[in-house]
Amino acid sequence: MALKIRTDGYCGDMRAVWFEDGEVRMIDQRDLPGKITVVGFSKYADVAEAIQNMTTRGAPSIGASAAYAMCLAALAGDDPNEAAERIRAARPTANDLFYAVEYMLSELRKGADPIAAADGYADMTVDKCTRIGEFGGPLIKDGMKIMTHCNAGALATVDVGTALAPMRKAFTDGRRFFVYVSETRPRLQGMQLTAWELGQEGIDHAVIPDGASAHYMSKGVDMIIVGADRIAANGDFANKIGTLDKAVAAKRFGIPFYVAAPISTFDFNTADGESIVIEERAETEVTEIFGRLIAPEGSRALNPAFDVTPAELVTGFITEKGILPPDGIRGIAS
Amino acid sequence: MALKIRTDGYCGDMRAVWFEDGEVRMIDQRDLPGKITVVGFSKYADVAEAIQNMTTRGAPSIGASAAYAMCLAALAGDDPNEAAERIRAARPTANDLFYAVEYMLSELRKGADPIAAADGYADMTVDKCTRIGEFGGPLIKDGMKIMTHCNAGALATVDVGTALAPMRKAFTDGRRFFVYVSETRPRLQGMQLTAWELGQEGIDHAVIPDGASAHYMSKGVDMIIVGADRIAANGDFANKIGTLDKAVAAKRFGIPFYVAAPISTFDFNTADGESIVIEERAETEVTEIFGRLIAPEGSRALNPAFDVTPAELVTGFITEKGILPPDGIRGIAS
Repeated sequence: MALKIRTDGYCGDMRAVWFEDGEVRMIDQRDLPGKITVVGFSKYADVAEAIQNMTTRGAPSIGASAAYAMCLAALAGDDPNEAAERIRAARPTANDLFYAVEYMLSELRKGADPIAAADGYADMTVDKCTRIGEFGGPLIKDGMKIMTHCNAGALATVDVGTALAPMRKAFTDGRRFFVYVSETRPRLQGMQLTAWELGQEGIDHAVIPDGASAHYMSKGVDMIIVGADRIAANGDFANKIGTLDKAVAAKRFGIPFYVAAPISTFDFNTADGESIVIEERAETEVTEIFGRLIAPEGSRALNPAFDVTPAELVTGFITEKGILPPDGIRGIAS
Repeated sequence: MALKIRTDGYCGDMRAVWFEDGEVRMIDQRDLPGKITVVGFSKYADVAEAIQNMTTRGAPSIGASAAYAMCLAALAGDDPNEAAERIRAARPTANDLFYAVEYMLSELRKGADPIAAADGYADMTVDKCTRIGEFGGPLIKDGMKIMTHCNAGALATVDVGTALAPMRKAFTDGRRFFVYVSETRPRLQGMQLTAWELGQEGIDHAVIPDGASAHYMSKGVDMIIVGADRIAANGDFANKIGTLDKAVAAKRFGIPFYVAAPISTFDFNTADGESIVIEERAETEVTEIFGRLIAPEGSRALNPAFDVTPAELVTGFITEKGILPPDGIRGIAS
């Protein structure tokens, strides 16, 4: 159930990041959907740079890339602590990055084979997604209309995805359905990554402007599935900006709203959504396209990367341990 | 209270369309916000073409342009019925266009001066907007945070605007407030036209991605004001796609939601929102930017131009006859 690549020149299945011939290889996500570029790195610092410049993105893919970077450092006999420091500095907010670096430091101290340890980390990530697909897939029936937002697919999670995992599983099991993909301004991960992944799988879909979500919900959507960046102890969760709008509209129109995420996304040290700090990104992501100013000169823009959706709007969390109601997540805090 | 133009080369006040030196002149809205281009036409067919190719846009501005086109035809001694036919064919959906052509035919039959009649039509449009500003302005208090969508400003209505009229009035009266301008994908009228108008006036504002609306509402917005394209007899109304999302979120967060529109926007022959047909526009408006494909090859897009918001989500309609509650609009059907 790996990422299918149907474009000429790349046949068969592929992960978002992997180890091959002494190199860390990854799909350059900045070139999608126009071009599938595979880049390879033999020095850990180059992988750190690739995380930083968003060649790879999505917290689980960043984590796996960091594990492979630590692997390269070990193979080259570089100082592991120095490598760990450089890799951690690549992006400030992705918890998976710090977790993966710690995991590799611990495995290497135990004398593990670097490649096997990093591959193991990536496999673990993919296994969780596969199980999310197995739990979530049965929710999707033949002929359903589903809506998703941003990219919580294979590109973001090494393979399979979180929000896209149930769709891949249902499709593999022979069910046919339709997916509304909201484009996800300003960076368009919905249009450029999710629509591309669904196209590769052959899953029927259409891109919609973010503002068209409620319109289509009012006409009939059967289910919404999104990913999550952080889930607080009370079930409030942060996800890509534009998620809250959809959750509020889903409530009004009586549409089940699911959040697909591995248990590692739950942060039981954060009491509720109020405590989650929202990253504000550069306003040029909104006001410029292809480096060209499209807003009036002098007009400011605001560009929050995430919003916070309250637990009461969530029908269930699809995790690798099962589907949990918002008031049932405490039980899995182990 | 005309459209202020602060850019070098154009000083002082200006309308979106007017008559001067034997020409119909208009701001070419396709060049905004990067460049202020004034184009002039001395033949009615050229004005019809300018309506068609969206040099001018917004139903009331289209109506005034049509009136001035009829004026040019009369001055040139062209056959009025032939001119009327060509002008009516410019765009199929704008009611104002048909209304303006009828108005001019009737005035010309009565022997009215063509320029005076067309100027009268434009003045009437602006007068209604001014009165909308007078009724709506007092709703806006010092320090408020307001949100709007798309462009219901001077560019769309010859001058003053509908949704922007209360803001212009409150600002002129000395009150200071902040406006969240949602960018309005796919055509970006919020970012490119509304932000530009507010910038010209000196009204504090910031552009936000459409998906950030609920996020900012959850943080505190005091009022939402939008325009309308058609208001049904029961108060349901059609407006630019992305309006329904905002109305639903406003309800959840307890934020007053106003619709600013002249009485001519009410269509008492349409019973409710269900009966309003939604125009589907070309998918390339979503999938291409600057003529370049940004979606995956083979991915479809859906591009509804409008959505329908139910009356129960509306706090009030700000009209030239006063602010009406949704259940009070029948009274003005005269």
